[in-house]
Amino acid sequence: MTAHRKCNGEITSFVRRHIGPSARDVTAMLETVGARSVDALMAETLPSSIRQAAPLDLGKPLSETEAIAHMTELARQNQVFTSLIGQGYSGTILPTVIQRNILENPAWYTAYTPYQPEISQGRLEALFNFQTMICDLTGLDVANASLLDEATAAAEAMALAERHSQVMAQAFFVDKDVHPQTLAVMRTRAEPLGWSLIVGDPLTELDKAEVLGALLQYPGSSGAVRDLRPVIAALKAKGALAIVAADLLALTLLASPGELGADIAIGSAQRFGVPMGYGGPHAAYMAVRDALKRSLPGRIVGLSVDSRGAPAYRLALQTREQHIRREKATSNICTAQVLLAVIAAMYAVYHGPEGLAQIARNVHRRTTVLAAGLRKLGFAPQSETFFDTISIDAGARRAEIIVRAAAEKINLGIGHANLRIALDETTTPATVEALWRAFGGTLSYAEIDATTREALPEALKRTTAFLTHPVFHAHRSETEMLRYMRKLSDRDLALDRAMIPLGSCTMKLNATTEMMPLTWPEFATLHPFVPREQASGYHALFARLEKWLCDITGYDAISLQPNSGAQGEYAGLLAIRGYHASRGEAHRKICLIPSSAHGTNPASAAMVGMDVVVVACEKNGDVDVNDLRAKAEKHSKDLAAVMITYPSTHGVFEEHIREICDIVHGHGGQVYLDGANLNAQVGLSRPGDYGADVSHLNLHKTFCIPHGGGGPGMGPIGVKAHLAPFLPGHPATRADAPVGPVSAAPFGSASILTISYIYILMMGGEGLKRATEIAILNANYVAARLEPHFPVLYKNPRGRVAHECIVDPRPLKTTSGVTVDDIAKRLIDYGFHAPTMSFPVPGTLMIEPTESESKAELDRFCDAMIAIRKEIAEVETGRFKIEASPLRHAPHTVHDIADDGWKRAYTRAEGCFPDGVSRTDKYWCPVGRVDNVYGDRNLVCSCPPVNDYAEAAE
Amino acid sequence: MTAHRKCNGEITSFVRRHIGPSARDVTAMLETVGARSVDALMAETLPSSIRQAAPLDLGKPLSETEAIAHMTELARQNQVFTSLIGQGYSGTILPTVIQRNILENPAWYTAYTPYQPEISQGRLEALFNFQTMICDLTGLDVANASLLDEATAAAEAMALAERHSQVMAQAFFVDKDVHPQTLAVMRTRAEPLGWSLIVGDPLTELDKAEVLGALLQYPGSSGAVRDLRPVIAALKAKGALAIVAADLLALTLLASPGELGADIAIGSAQRFGVPMGYGGPHAAYMAVRDALKRSLPGRIVGLSVDSRGAPAYRLALQTREQHIRREKATSNICTAQVLLAVIAAMYAVYHGPEGLAQIARNVHRRTTVLAAGLRKLGFAPQSETFFDTISIDAGARRAEIIVRAAAEKINLGIGHANLRIALDETTTPATVEALWRAFGGTLSYAEIDATTREALPEALKRTTAFLTHPVFHAHRSETEMLRYMRKLSDRDLALDRAMIPLGSCTMKLNATTEMMPLTWPEFATLHPFVPREQASGYHALFARLEKWLCDITGYDAISLQPNSGAQGEYAGLLAIRGYHASRGEAHRKICLIPSSAHGTNPASAAMVGMDVVVVACEKNGDVDVNDLRAKAEKHSKDLAAVMITYPSTHGVFEEHIREICDIVHGHGGQVYLDGANLNAQVGLSRPGDYGADVSHLNLHKTFCIPHGGGGPGMGPIGVKAHLAPFLPGHPATRADAPVGPVSAAPFGSASILTISYIYILMMGGEGLKRATEIAILNANYVAARLEPHFPVLYKNPRGRVAHECIVDPRPLKTTSGVTVDDIAKRLIDYGFHAPTMSFPVPGTLMIEPTESESKAELDRFCDAMIAIRKEIAEVETGRFKIEASPLRHAPHTVHDIADDGWKRAYTRAEGCFPDGVSRTDKYWCPVGRVDNVYGDRNLVCSCPPVNDYAEAAE
Repeated sequence: MTAHRKCNGEITSFVRRHIGPSARDVTAMLETVGARSVDALMAETLPSSIRQAAPLDLGKPLSETEAIAHMTELARQNQVFTSLIGQGYSGTILPTVIQRNILENPAWYTAYTPYQPEISQGRLEALFNFQTMICDLTGLDVANASLLDEATAAAEAMALAERHSQVMAQAFFVDKDVHPQTLAVMRTRAEPLGWSLIVGDPLTELDKAEVLGALLQYPGSSGAVRDLRPVIAALKAKGALAIVAADLLALTLLASPGELGADIAIGSAQRFGVPMGYGGPHAAYMAVRDALKRSLPGRIVGLSVDSRGAPAYRLALQTREQHIRREKATSNICTAQVLLAVIAAMYAVYHGPEGLAQIARNVHRRTTVLAAGLRKLGFAPQSETFFDTISIDAGARRAEIIVRAAAEKINLGIGHANLRIALDETTTPATVEALWRAFGGTLSYAEIDATTREALPEALKRTTAFLTHPVFHAHRSETEMLRYMRKLSDRDLALDRAMIPLGSCTMKLNATTEMMPLTWPEFATLHPFVPREQASGYHALFARLEKWLCDITGYDAISLQPNSGAQGEYAGLLAIRGYHASRGEAHRKICLIPSSAHGTNPASAAMVGMDVVVVACEKNGDVDVNDLRAKAEKHSKDLAAVMITYPSTHGVFEEHIREICDIVHGHGGQVYLDGANLNAQVGLSRPGDYGADVSHLNLHKTFCIPHGGGGPGMGPIGVKAHLAPFLPGHPATRADAPVGPVSAAPFGSASILTISYIYILMMGGEGLKRATEIAILNANYVAARLEPHFPVLYKNPRGRVAHECIVDPRPLKTTSGVTVDDIAKRLIDYGFHAPTMSFPVPGTLMIEPTESESKAELDRFCDAMIAIRKEIAEVETGRFKIEASPLRHAPHTVHDIADDGWKRAYTRAEGCFPDGVSRTDKYWCPVGRVDNVYGDRNLVCSCPPVNDYAEAAE
Repeated sequence: MTAHRKCNGEITSFVRRHIGPSARDVTAMLETVGARSVDALMAETLPSSIRQAAPLDLGKPLSETEAIAHMTELARQNQVFTSLIGQGYSGTILPTVIQRNILENPAWYTAYTPYQPEISQGRLEALFNFQTMICDLTGLDVANASLLDEATAAAEAMALAERHSQVMAQAFFVDKDVHPQTLAVMRTRAEPLGWSLIVGDPLTELDKAEVLGALLQYPGSSGAVRDLRPVIAALKAKGALAIVAADLLALTLLASPGELGADIAIGSAQRFGVPMGYGGPHAAYMAVRDALKRSLPGRIVGLSVDSRGAPAYRLALQTREQHIRREKATSNICTAQVLLAVIAAMYAVYHGPEGLAQIARNVHRRTTVLAAGLRKLGFAPQSETFFDTISIDAGARRAEIIVRAAAEKINLGIGHANLRIALDETTTPATVEALWRAFGGTLSYAEIDATTREALPEALKRTTAFLTHPVFHAHRSETEMLRYMRKLSDRDLALDRAMIPLGSCTMKLNATTEMMPLTWPEFATLHPFVPREQASGYHALFARLEKWLCDITGYDAISLQPNSGAQGEYAGLLAIRGYHASRGEAHRKICLIPSSAHGTNPASAAMVGMDVVVVACEKNGDVDVNDLRAKAEKHSKDLAAVMITYPSTHGVFEEHIREICDIVHGHGGQVYLDGANLNAQVGLSRPGDYGADVSHLNLHKTFCIPHGGGGPGMGPIGVKAHLAPFLPGHPATRADAPVGPVSAAPFGSASILTISYIYILMMGGEGLKRATEIAILNANYVAARLEPHFPVLYKNPRGRVAHECIVDPRPLKTTSGVTVDDIAKRLIDYGFHAPTMSFPVPGTLMIEPTESESKAELDRFCDAMIAIRKEIAEVETGRFKIEASPLRHAPHTVHDIADDGWKRAYTRAEGCFPDGVSRTDKYWCPVGRVDNVYGDRNLVCSCPPVNDYAEAAE
C-alpha cells in the first residue's frame, strides 16, 4: 500500500528530481571519497555528539501533483478582496510578458548576485535602468540597486543622516504622516543606538526640535500632498538632513524630492508591477545627492570598462559591501531585491514616461471623482490636496462603512480616527461606485467625472522630464519588450545553464513546482494588512512552516518576519538583547565573534549596540576554544552572546561546538548560531539540540527560494522558548511586543514562503536528510577530485569537509603569478560561474556544489579546475608568462576570437574552447574582464546622456 | 466615460502592444512608401469593389487584465471531472519543468517549422528524440515527426497501404475494436476515393475478406489485449498490409507492433504529458518498416552533415512535402504537431524507460485491482486480458451507474451496450474506490490489491529494450532536465529573438496573455467526449468565436473541427462535394486551380476525388481570367469548384476577384477561397461578400496561435449558408451529418482556440482592422526600401503589394552566381530567419513582415538585405568569387571563427559580424550549411547506436 501510495500521481518522487546524483552515481562517488556508505561518510563528517537522535518526521511527502493540489486548496482559503488600504502597498498590474519571461523564467530567477560582472551584464543593465529610473523620478543624483523594503530603507536613511548631519543631536524627526510600519521599524532601529525619535507635524512642529535630520512622507500616508519646501529649507539651514519617503507613481506628476531640496529619497517600487504578495518581496529604493553617494547603503551598479576598454556594468564600491565594515558598521545590508527591482525597471521600460504619467493621471482622476462623490455624500476628505489616497473622518458611521465596504469585497485603510482609501492602477469606476455605496450613496461615476477638477497643488506639479533615455522608449510593443528581456537574460549565466558552485550560497535547484503558486492571484494580490481571515491560507501555511522549521532546527519558535539573512541576525540579536534586558541585565553588551565570521555578524552586533570582541581562530580554521574561554571569562559579567557559524565558514563541522555553547552559557551569554550553513545539517543535527539559542535560516539557501540575481531572500529566525517573547513584533499583528519590527511587513516577504513550504512538503523528513547527505557527499567528492591539484584547506580530523570545501591556489601565485581572480575568470571560459572568492580566506576559492548537482556536472566542473591547473603548470614551465596566458586574458569574448590580428601565445581554441568546452553550446560572456578600479574612480550609476550611450553601444 | 473605460486596468490598449510601429513610425513609413495616409494606402492596395462597407463590430475590446478575468469566468463554466472515458485520450501529468520551459516558453512556442535546419537544431534534436522513441516503442524502423491526431494518422496509413498493397482490392478491413472516431474519419476519407471499409472482428472475420490491408487496435478500444500475430501473419501472407494502432504506454509492457509483424503503427502520443485540452492539440505518430519509409507521410527529421562534415539534423525527404505532389497526392499533410511531439519526447527523456515502464505498471496495477473489485461486485470485465481499460456489461444497472459515477465526479466511457473504464497515470486508489461505489459496493483498495494478479497475457509481454540511447538516461534530475531544454532552445532562432519574415506564414506576435489560459486545468484537462454541460465554458467560447469569424469573413457558419490549414481545405472541398451531391450533381468533379497555388490545394482536391484542371497565370502573377473563363466553360457541366488564394500567393490583391467568382458561379461551381492570406483582409474586406463560398482560416497565422516550431495549427472553415449542412460531422456531436469528421475531436485542437479568442477579444474590430492596415503598410515599406536593391516582383496596378512582397534575386545569379539559398543562409549571419524561399516563384524570396514588427526591426532586416546586396556586388566586381564569398560560406559558426587557420578572402568580422551585427548579442547557429542531398541519400531518422552518437558529439 505504501509503495503504491508513493506512486499516486508521479511515480518518481520529487526527491529524485531535486537531488542530482543517481543511486549509481552515489556508489561511484563514495568510492572516490573512500567511504563505505553514505552513513559511514556522515559518521566521519559530523561529530557524533551532535547527531540528532530521532529521524525528522514531517509527514508523508507529497508528489508534485499532490503539492499543487494542496496549494490550490490553501489558495482557496485566501480571499481576494480589492484592497484600498494604501500604507505603501498598492494594487498593480504586472504585464504578463514580464511575469512569464522574468518572474517565471529560471534564466532570471536562478541567477546569483552579480559579483562576477562578466556573466551578469544582463541583470546589471536592468538594475542600471532601475537606478536611472529612481534618479530621474526622485530628482537626485545617485540611487542604489534596491533595498529590502520602505521601512528598512527609512531606517537606513536615518543612519546615513546620522553620519552626515552637521547637527550634533541624537534626535531625529519623523513626520507623523509616515506609514505606521515605517515609524515602527525606525523605532526598533533607533533605540539600541540611543537615538530618540520625535514624531510630529513637520509643518508646525519641526522648527522647535533640535534634530539631526527628518523623514517626511510625500504624499503623506494619509494621502495629503503638502509643500515640503519650507520645511526642508529650514532643516538644511541648520545642517540637518532631509529625507523624503516618496511614492514613485506620484512623482510622475509631482515635483521631485530633489527639486524640493531633499538630500535623500526613499520608498517602495512595489507598485511598478510587483504583486503585493501579502507583504513582499518588493524592491525599496534609496537615492541621494552626489555628496552622499559613498555612504549609500546596499548595492550600486556602476558603469566601468572591460579589458578592451568597452563599457561594462559592475557592482560599484563593493568594498563597502562585501567587506562590510564589521563592527564599525552602521548597516548590515548585504543584499538587494534584484528580481523585483528588475521587474519594476521593466515595468518602466514597458510603459515609458508617457505611460507611467498616464497611469498616474488615471489613478488621480479616479481619486478626485471618488472624493467629489464622497463630498456629495457628506464625507469631505481631510486634505484638499491629494494624489491617490484620501482620508475621511466617518465619525459614528465608521464601523458601518467598514462592514458595507467588506460586503463589496473592499478593504479600506483603517486609521485611529479616520478611514483611508488608496486607489491604484487597478481601480475601476465600478470600484468607485461601490465605495460610494459603502458610504451610503448611489452615484454615477460618469456624472461626477464630468464635473470634477484635479486635486494636485499647482505649485507642486512636476515640470521636469524623466526617463528620457532611449531604453524607456524603444520597447513599447510586446515583441520588442520580449526580445529585450531575452537579450538581457542571454547575457547572463544562471543555474539554468550551469552549476554555480558558490561556497556558503547554496545554489541548489529552485524547482518549477515550488515556483508556481506564488504568482497565483490568491497569493500574489493580498495586501499585507488585510483582515487576518482573508489570509487563512497564508496563516495555515505559516503555522505549518514554523512547525517544520522548529522540527528541523530544534528550536521552539520561529519568526518569519526578517526578509534577509542579515535581518535575521539583527532580529536574533535584538531577541538576545531583549532577553537580557528583561532579566535586568541590560549591561550585557559583549558579543564574541570569531575572526572568521562573515562581516554581517559584527555589523549586526553593532546595530543592536553590542561591543564586538573578536575570538581567534586556530590554524585549522576552528575557533580557538582557549581564546574563547579566556574572553568569555574576562567579559563574564557583560557577556551578551557569541555569534558562531556552524558548520564553520571554513566548511567544517568543528568538534567542540557543544563545548563552545557550554562555555558561553556558563557565563550567562546566549549562543547565536548563524544558519547560513544549515544545508549541511538538516536531518542530521539540530542547533537547538546542541546548545544554540537562536539562528537565522536563509530560506534562499537551504530552502530553495531562488537567489533572483541578488534577492529576494528570507531570513526567518528560530529561537529557544526563553527567547520567544522577544521575537519581532509589528504594529499590525503584535503591537505590544517588547521588541519592535525589523521589516515593513509582519511576515516579511510572505509570498515566497510558499517556495520553502512546497520544498519541505515534497521532500519530507527522509528526503531532506538525503539532500543533506548528498550535499556533503558532493562536497567531499569535489574535494577528493581536486585535492591532487589544489590543496584543500580545512577538514575535520577524519579528513572530511562538510557541504563545501576551500581550495587554495595561493602557492601557485608564487610559482606562476596566477591570482584567484585569474582562476575565477578562466572558469567563465569553461562555462562556469566562479566559486566564492576570497571568503573566508583571502586568495582562496570556496566551492559548494549542493545536492542538486549531478555527478556529470561535478565532473565537468572538476575537469575544468584540473584543466586550469594544467594551464597554470604551463606558466610554471614557461610556455607563456602569466600576463600572456589564457588565464590572465580570461574571460575570452567574441570580441577576442573575432580579432583577425590574434597574436596570442595560445590558439583561439585554447583560449575560448579549452578542454571539453562545446563550441556549439558555448556561453559567451558579453564583456572581457571588468576594471573595478576604473569604475570606482569614475562612478557612473545611471544612464549616461544619449550620445555617450550610442558610443558605448558597439 | 469611454476614454476612461478604455483605461480600466491598463492604460495602453493591447492593440498598441500587438502592433509594432508607433504612430510616429507610421508617419515616417508612409512617407517612405509615398502614401498620404493609411487610408490612402489601403485605397491604393485593395480594389474598391471588395472593400467592406460597415466597420467590424465585435464589441468593446478588453484590456489584458480584463481578458484574463473574462477567461477565468469561462474557465469556471467548465467542470473538471475525472474522465475515464478512454477512446485514445488519457489523463496525464505534464511535468511542471516541461510545462514552464517548453509549453510556456516563447523560445519554443514561437519557433517556425524547421525548414532552415541551421537555426533549428534544438527542436530538430527534440523531434529526433521523438522519432527514436516511436521507433523503439513500436519496434519499427522509421517514424515521422508526428501527425495531427490518431484518426487522421489511421486514414493516412490506409492511404499508404493502398499504394503498397499487393492485393488489388479496393476494400480495407477495420477492427471493430478501433476508437469510433478513428473509424468515422477513415470512412470520411475512404468514401470519395471509392474504397470500401469492412468492419469486423479481425480474429474471426478477417480471413473471409479480400482486403488491401487492415487496421487493428492494440489494446482494443474496449481494453482487450488480443494476440494479433496470427491475423497479421494471415494478412501478410496475402500481400496485404497490417496497420496497428497502438497505445504507447502499453507498449512499454507489451510486445511491439513490429514484433507482432505489423508494417505500420500509428497512434497518439497524448498521454506522454500532453494535456487532453478537450481534444487537442496532441501529436499522433506513424512508424513503418524500412521498405515503406519513402512513402511515410508528414515530416521526417533526418541526420545529415553540415559544411564541415559535422552531424546536423534536418527535415529529410522534403521534396515529398514542401513540393507536395499536387494533384497526384494521396495526402495533403504539410504540417506536424511539433510542440506536442517535443513535449511527448521530453516526457520520455524525463522519465526514461524505467520510469515509463513503472508508470505503465502502476496504471495496470490499478486496473487489475479495479477489475477484481468489480468482479466481486458482480461485474466481470468483458475481456480477461487488458492493460488499463476494461469494459463491463452493466445490464439494467447501466444508467444508475453512470449517474452514481457522475456524483463521484467521474466520467465513464459509454459504449453502445457496455461501460468502459480507462485508467491512467493520474488514477489514485481513491478513484478506484469511488468507482466501486458507483457500481454499488464499498471495498478497500488495499485489501483487493493484496490478492490480485496482473492481466497482461504472458505471451505478449515485452521482452525487448527501448529508449536505450543516453539522452533518455542523462536528465533525470530537474536541474539536468532544465539545462537540456535550455541548451536545445538556445540553438534555435525564434520570434523571441528576431523577426521571422516568412511570406505566407504570418509570424506575428503570440502574446503572453493569449497563451496563459490554455494551461489552466479547466481548459487543459477536459476529455473531448465529456458531457457537453461540463464544457459550457468551451462552448460559450466556440459560439462567440464562430460568430466573430463569421463577422470577419462574411460567412454564415463555421466549423472549428479542422486542425490544420490543409485539413480545412479538405473539409471545405468535402462540403462542396456534399452540396453538389445533395443537388443530384455528384458528377461535378472538376476543380480549377491556378498554377500559382500552394501544393496543398490540388492535393486536397485529389483527396475528395476531384479532378484538377490547372488555370494559367499571367506574367504579373494574376490568374489568367480568360483561361479561367475558357476552362470553366469547357467543364461547365462538371465544374465543382475553383480554389483560389486571395490576396494571391504572389502577395497581391488581384483586381478581378469578383469576376472570377462570378464566372465560376455562372457555371454552377463553388468558390473555395484559400484563407492563408486573410491577414491582409481582416476588417477591410470579406470573402463572403465578394463571392467566395468557403474558406479555411489559418488561426495559426492570422489569429495568433503560435507556430510551435511546426504545429499545432488550426484551420477552421467558414461557409455560406448553403454549404452549412455539409460541414464536418462527428460521432460525438453530429453523428447524422451528411459529411463525416475530418479530425479525431469534434472541435479539433480545442484548447488553443482560446488563443485566437483572446486575441480577437483584446483587439476588437477597430484593432483588427488597424493590424491589417499596418501589416500592409509594413509590407509596402519593406518593398519600398528593398526595391532599389532587389526587384519587387508583383504589385497591383497602383504599385502596391498586399501584406507580403516577393523580391527577385534571380538576375543576380547571372551576374554573380549567388543563389537564393546563399542569401537565405547569409541572413542567418545577420541574425534573421530567411523569408520564404522559392514559393510561389522558384529562386525568389517572399517577405511577410506582419503588423507586429516595429519599424526598427524592419529597418534592421532591410539593412541586412541591402548589405547582402552589397556583398553580392563585391562578387560582381571581382573582390572574391562566389565560392569564396561570405555568401557561400554562410551561415558562419563558432567553428569557423575559432579556426586559427582562417584563410578566407574576407575577415572574420566580415564573415561573422557583417554590417550592424552585435558581437555581444550575436546568435550563433550551431552548425554550418546543411547538406540536403547527403541526408536524403543516407537516411538516418532515429538515434544512431551509442558509439556513433559519441563520435557525433563534438
